Amino acid sequence: MTMNNQAVERGVLAAVLTPIGENMAPDLSLWVNRCRWLLDQGCDGLAVLGTTSEANSFSVKERLGMLDALAENGIPGNVVIPGTECCALPDTIALTQKAMEIGAAGVLMLPPFYYKPVTDKGLFEAYSAVIDGVADDRLLIYLYHIPQNSGVPITFGLIEKLRKAYPNTVVGIKDSAGDFANMEGMIKNFSDFRVFSGSDAFLLDILRAGGAGAITACNNICGAQSAQVFANWQNDNADTLQQAVHDVRSIIQKFPLVAALKEVVAQSTGEPGWRRQRPPLEPLKEKEAALLMEQLASVGFTMRK
Amino acid sequence: MTMNNQAVERGVLAAVLTPIGENMAPDLSLWVNRCRWLLDQGCDGLAVLGTTSEANSFSVKERLGMLDALAENGIPGNVVIPGTECCALPDTIALTQKAMEIGAAGVLMLPPFYYKPVTDKGLFEAYSAVIDGVADDRLLIYLYHIPQNSGVPITFGLIEKLRKAYPNTVVGIKDSAGDFANMEGMIKNFSDFRVFSGSDAFLLDILRAGGAGAITACNNICGAQSAQVFANWQNDNADTLQQAVHDVRSIIQKFPLVAALKEVVAQSTGEPGWRRQRPPLEPLKEKEAALLMEQLASVGFTMRK
Repeated sequence: MTMNNQAVERGVLAAVLTPIGENMAPDLSLWVNRCRWLLDQGCDGLAVLGTTSEANSFSVKERLGMLDALAENGIPGNVVIPGTECCALPDTIALTQKAMEIGAAGVLMLPPFYYKPVTDKGLFEAYSAVIDGVADDRLLIYLYHIPQNSGVPITFGLIEKLRKAYPNTVVGIKDSAGDFANMEGMIKNFSDFRVFSGSDAFLLDILRAGGAGAITACNNICGAQSAQVFANWQNDNADTLQQAVHDVRSIIQKFPLVAALKEVVAQSTGEPGWRRQRPPLEPLKEKEAALLMEQLASVGFTMRK
Repeated sequence: MTMNNQAVERGVLAAVLTPIGENMAPDLSLWVNRCRWLLDQGCDGLAVLGTTSEANSFSVKERLGMLDALAENGIPGNVVIPGTECCALPDTIALTQKAMEIGAAGVLMLPPFYYKPVTDKGLFEAYSAVIDGVADDRLLIYLYHIPQNSGVPITFGLIEKLRKAYPNTVVGIKDSAGDFANMEGMIKNFSDFRVFSGSDAFLLDILRAGGAGAITACNNICGAQSAQVFANWQNDNADTLQQAVHDVRSIIQKFPLVAALKEVVAQSTGEPGWRRQRPPLEPLKEKEAALLMEQLASVGFTMRK
């Protein structure tokens, strides 16, 4: 397993899937092994407990247990950036404190996502309350802009307020809205602000624009290919390497995201349990699964074992 | 306090506000007193822990404590319909079991609201998993259609599936989307299905259409007026009585909902703590508060003490 004393600040991170056991609880053993495998593939870090991880479908207790499992099984905290934001402040604080306890490189934080519309001032107060509540100088927050799920966008105005008040804490963002102009704008507007693309489509583009890298769902299956882009982004072969990532992503995005990725992992590991999801998410139907695998094969995709 | 042996099935319910103490925790004593006051005003029931209650801003532990406080303070369970749905299945089950424990008349259930879009099949599985997990024949579920917050609508197709599978459990809905045609459609399409309007605007209309009543935020301050509409909806003075409710609502809706209602309660009770909200929600600014009170006075509104 790749070891690194320096906390991950840029590169290629996987938005790690969560395997679910027959009892519908997270399968911690399968999960920790997969985390190791992702690092071995060349992923610079593990964005666990995010959207792709079905984090919001797990209770706070279950999520705390998952973070403990990482530490207990020797996954170094400095490559881990867990999602910790919930709708309720005490939950967000508890999860963020646990992230600090395991030495996480940072945390990925949604805005509280039930109430909408809300003001930037209200969101600033929400993030402030978490920062004050966690009360840990080591805390590094990556904001999480994914309005298609949260319904609550992270505006430039909010980033500016937070950067001004907490320049050493609010250090970056994951932008999963899929609009590259927004990512470029943040890189230009906010110095020393680490902008990660939430989509593989922009991995090479964002590196060329001065961004930090990509935190993506597809890295669950093509982390090795993304790592190649990151290693070679200034080289002549960069576009060719990016195309390989793009090919996979353009197929995956035709299917429900978590279901498609879990299907590929189930097939490539021979562990059918990987298909399980908590409702309301559902596994692919057999026909869809066959179509997905056929299309991936047609672009020459094979997941490294 | 009004006592009633029959669990509330129709009428006028308040979507009860949650007072917050200086420590930012729910002020249980102020809250229980307010619950009693609302029943004394003529509300038929208490929809606690819903959107207006800021329920999703409180942890599951805090919410369990609130339900316990109702029982410990003698609020009869048969007038209480708490919101119990969270994004995570174990949380929803725990809260719903607690609701059963205190003898709640039913529970109000959002769909899991982080993932979108999701299929009716996925949502059906989510509700099924709760019903199976709670495993209590007394359970009565009112679905909660509020797509402007949840991002996940409750379709006729989903209602049909649920009614077919659980005719004695899925007994009604609160429709807060503000489209009366949708409410009428549900009343016509689903027999013995209790349709509550989530807006005061349609209280009289929905009663005339054969609906069950209204579960609304404004009933925190005009429950007495709404109770008059319910008592007289077949009488000649019904429209005049409805107009009084409508007057209040049409003013309140110009302001952020929870903030406006908390302002009115703070002013009328002399308890400034009522203004507190958990971020990202914010109290009204002083100017807004003055304007709100002025406008309410202009329509002759005074809250009964």
